Amino acid sequence: MFVTFEGGEGVGKSTQIRLLAGALEAHGHAVRITREPGGSAGAEAVRHVILSGAAESYGVRMEALLFAAARSDHVETVIRPALETGSVVLCDRFMDSSRVYQGITGNLPERLIDGLERVAINGLRPDITIILDMPAAEGLARARSRASQSADVASAVPDRFEKEELETHEKRREAFLDIAARDPGRCRIVDASRAVDLIAADVLSAVEAVISERQAGKVTA
Amino acid sequence: MFVTFEGGEGVGKSTQIRLLAGALEAHGHAVRITREPGGSAGAEAVRHVILSGAAESYGVRMEALLFAAARSDHVETVIRPALETGSVVLCDRFMDSSRVYQGITGNLPERLIDGLERVAINGLRPDITIILDMPAAEGLARARSRASQSADVASAVPDRFEKEELETHEKRREAFLDIAARDPGRCRIVDASRAVDLIAADVLSAVEAVISERQAGKVTA
Repeated sequence: MFVTFEGGEGVGKSTQIRLLAGALEAHGHAVRITREPGGSAGAEAVRHVILSGAAESYGVRMEALLFAAARSDHVETVIRPALETGSVVLCDRFMDSSRVYQGITGNLPERLIDGLERVAINGLRPDITIILDMPAAEGLARARSRASQSADVASAVPDRFEKEELETHEKRREAFLDIAARDPGRCRIVDASRAVDLIAADVLSAVEAVISERQAGKVTA
Repeated sequence: MFVTFEGGEGVGKSTQIRLLAGALEAHGHAVRITREPGGSAGAEAVRHVILSGAAESYGVRMEALLFAAARSDHVETVIRPALETGSVVLCDRFMDSSRVYQGITGNLPERLIDGLERVAINGLRPDITIILDMPAAEGLARARSRASQSADVASAVPDRFEKEELETHEKRREAFLDIAARDPGRCRIVDASRAVDLIAADVLSAVEAVISERQAGKVTA
């Protein structure tokens, strides 16, 4: 059972992953939490290259290839082995983030993104993808308030830049919703602008429904 | 004018690149020598990840993605800018090495290699590719004698391993010849088991022929 969490910054992915892990463990499931970019030794090494290049600005093609390389290592050394031992794997961001960040807002052609996705995931698609959705302005405000807890970043950002940033977040939100519309069998959109416990209840029932389906399928098979 | 050199280990690529660079410079051309994997700051960072993983053995998919990422950076930050200033670029290994090492002897599907090549080179195909060819046993012996100048590696290798290594070299040689057969407009096979100056003369005349064609083409256009 492979569950991925997607959505823009500030939508509360890591909180919901923690709550879901607790609920699943309480029901007797073994749970493995992981995240991208990173999540395995090789992927962390690649992540370091990506971050080290942030200042020198690597091309978006190179970045997409690096993210795919990191994902390939993460899939083969962490996710697939954990699934094989029967764990439920909860992953913070996965292939849909590449589709949105490198494809939509990075302007890479969809055919290119499709090809890299195929190479990187090597047949391992999520059983369910939770897309946490909230208005872009709200997610951005939350992400900023989190950043400003360590340094006063928000107040230093000029107005024009803020407007561009909001437009980019809006574009990404629409792209995630578009992915869900095109793959309704896999994706569940969860309204993330509500209270944390209401969101968690929706996430848990969506994931449990898929687990029950799988178990019923196994019994019948 | 973008010239790549391909072939197995020990065929004398770097010697021939040096000789060609000297001859072209004597004819008034600006020459830029580069090599893969590596050749640019981003590519060297990726190369470090590849080498650091050699012991842990990354999957062949991850390696193919990393080589493609390094190539993308190399193309965009070194090769394309040098070509734009009018330099002749001589590159030690390029896309055909991925085709042979990750595709043929790494057992990755050709469709996957094609896709990564398209992403990495982003339209920048070599004008001419020199494939230095010699019997696999000869290339292997030369590569070994070079390695043993610093450490006595060859004598420590058991017989079974030597036989497998020779079979792999033979497979790679055939794969390079197959690439040349499928793309005769771009590739020139040069017999590299002869004297260095005879090889150099063939390489120079092959490259000069393409330079003349291009100049004639420009005048007509």
